[in-house]
Amino acid sequence: MDISEKSLKKHYEWKGKIETKCRVDVSSREALMEAYTPGVAAPCLAIHDDVERSFLLTRRWNTVPVITDGTAVLGLGDIGPEAGMPVMEGKCALFKAYGDVDAYPICLRTKDTEEIIRTIKVMAGSFGGINLEDISAPRCFEIETRLKGELDIPVFHDDQHGTAIVIAAALHNALKLANKKIEDIRVVVNGAGAAGIAISRFLLSFGVKHLIACDRYGTLYEGNEAMNAPQAELAKITNRDMLKGTLADAMKGADVFVGVSAPRVVTKEMVASMAERPILFPCANPIPEITPEEAKEAGAYIVGTGSSQYPNQINNVLVFPGLFRGALDVRAKDINDEMMRAASLGIASCVKDDELSVDHILPFAYDKAAHAAVAEAVSRAAIRTGVARI
Amino acid sequence: MDISEKSLKKHYEWKGKIETKCRVDVSSREALMEAYTPGVAAPCLAIHDDVERSFLLTRRWNTVPVITDGTAVLGLGDIGPEAGMPVMEGKCALFKAYGDVDAYPICLRTKDTEEIIRTIKVMAGSFGGINLEDISAPRCFEIETRLKGELDIPVFHDDQHGTAIVIAAALHNALKLANKKIEDIRVVVNGAGAAGIAISRFLLSFGVKHLIACDRYGTLYEGNEAMNAPQAELAKITNRDMLKGTLADAMKGADVFVGVSAPRVVTKEMVASMAERPILFPCANPIPEITPEEAKEAGAYIVGTGSSQYPNQINNVLVFPGLFRGALDVRAKDINDEMMRAASLGIASCVKDDELSVDHILPFAYDKAAHAAVAEAVSRAAIRTGVARI
Repeated sequence: MDISEKSLKKHYEWKGKIETKCRVDVSSREALMEAYTPGVAAPCLAIHDDVERSFLLTRRWNTVPVITDGTAVLGLGDIGPEAGMPVMEGKCALFKAYGDVDAYPICLRTKDTEEIIRTIKVMAGSFGGINLEDISAPRCFEIETRLKGELDIPVFHDDQHGTAIVIAAALHNALKLANKKIEDIRVVVNGAGAAGIAISRFLLSFGVKHLIACDRYGTLYEGNEAMNAPQAELAKITNRDMLKGTLADAMKGADVFVGVSAPRVVTKEMVASMAERPILFPCANPIPEITPEEAKEAGAYIVGTGSSQYPNQINNVLVFPGLFRGALDVRAKDINDEMMRAASLGIASCVKDDELSVDHILPFAYDKAAHAAVAEAVSRAAIRTGVARI
Repeated sequence: MDISEKSLKKHYEWKGKIETKCRVDVSSREALMEAYTPGVAAPCLAIHDDVERSFLLTRRWNTVPVITDGTAVLGLGDIGPEAGMPVMEGKCALFKAYGDVDAYPICLRTKDTEEIIRTIKVMAGSFGGINLEDISAPRCFEIETRLKGELDIPVFHDDQHGTAIVIAAALHNALKLANKKIEDIRVVVNGAGAAGIAISRFLLSFGVKHLIACDRYGTLYEGNEAMNAPQAELAKITNRDMLKGTLADAMKGADVFVGVSAPRVVTKEMVASMAERPILFPCANPIPEITPEEAKEAGAYIVGTGSSQYPNQINNVLVFPGLFRGALDVRAKDINDEMMRAASLGIASCVKDDELSVDHILPFAYDKAAHAAVAEAVSRAAIRTGVARI
């Protein structure tokens, strides 16, 4: 039985990967009077007097919905809101297991940007933060930006920033091994959708100076007519040499390749044309831009992919449980860039120098110490940048 | 320490009355591959092929949100969405403890009828049913009616129907003791808001032939200019003798009084003016329309109130866990009148004839057997009326 069959069978057996747990005694008249009526009027009135007390008197402080419209689920695309639920439930299970965050899945039967924004705003008083998931570009940019501006709880689109954070962590450790400085390297990011754009922006904020983004039509550069609006914005701050050409052209002499694009678009020749000790993160799922075997044969120094079947899995499971744990612990009103950079460095720090090797640049997704390290780093960064409320 | 202080203190200690529980193993690479990527693509695609499979492959089958806009919380009125959360969380805890239903609270920062309807419709693919809670009249009628018509999962406004169901159960057993037939009795319902209107309608469907509803201005009768639209609808099917007058006038010769109105509006004289062996359910909370002591002094035969401090507590906690359990078990697409009548009779049946007394007409809210009886009766009624999907 392959993994798909096995997983389907298990899902039929599980009948759901999360459930609700009752935390209080309700088994007697006295217990009911405290947890429910008439006693419950007192916490209600206390919150009515000061709405911030909803973080103290209910589970709001620890609750994050995983919200999707089902338009960009895994590599499967627009499969519909209900069909996205197994992924959302899986994330909720991981939120609990690795971050002790109470998460629940909400799928939205709309693709309308304004309606998604409005729906989430209307519900926001129930939550300590919002995890957006698998919403397709370019709508995801406006949805996230608007919600971040209009809500005073953290809003995070995992597909954009989760991947960016773990790739930056992987890069940080890979550069140590390759003995290269982040400000010197040339980076190519292939696939300028939600993830590719977020990765590019985040790597710039992480210290990268030379970055070229590519999409199906080739390199992004200012004035390229093929670009959409978010790509045009990105072109203003990347590819300052205005290289016009294909992915192959961009990869010549590059130190790092990051792929969030399509299967098998990178050839051995392209890898061979890169700088010394090239680092490749071909993350297309389930089939990468180039297999680790081929990349290595062509001279790759370090390779990481989205798959758990090779070394160096670039897995955003490493990010979201600890990131939200850290944000919730200090009741952060935002997840800002510094908190995301702290998360990256927190992940990177979990592979000690004496464990670090070309086949081990990241901790494992199921390493609880890594999630704890992320949480602590993120809490500290929130306090440092003034977005913590406790 | 009184119950309010005790409850507030406990709520600060609890920091939430429910939490999420992870039902699957995610502690290894292999486990992650099944519960999350890459295996999870298989259940996603299976739901994409047939959206009904979301009831089999995710927790949807057992999940019910408790949704409020915070406009009619307990007897506290419009205290705001966040302030309603302790009640919603309490209901979720009871849903789990008594019905094994996975419920979570969602408070909405809007009072706009259309926006509430739209928000709930957009989220409905995540759930097996919808529990509306503490939404003020008359908006609650349109919200419930529209959602019932437009969704294919059960929608239930507990404040209307939960109270109606438990009052009908209490009445059923009280009439046995009083040796009166439901078709002969004269019933007065005081308080023609959401609960009062729903109770009146439900008692008619339960077999009552003679019913007069009252509000602050006196009796409801066709043509009464003081009535709002839902009251005018109710007046068409009640008070066929067109009695015009006060509550005191209506109560003369009545067999049953049901109050969902205001403290102390019923006097001993009014009780004394009722028929032989009068039955009173003064349910105003926390202070009833008349205290059981006073009612008994004035000749009441059976008295039930909303309070757990007196015998015969009329508590809708007896209803919603079993009602939804029964509906979810057969994947009902609606909760119809017959299912609600079945719930009433299920509750009533839990007090055996040899236990039945004027001080014991209902099971206790924390009696698990009562919830199981409701669930079974509701499932059967759903199958009988063709709304069950399994």
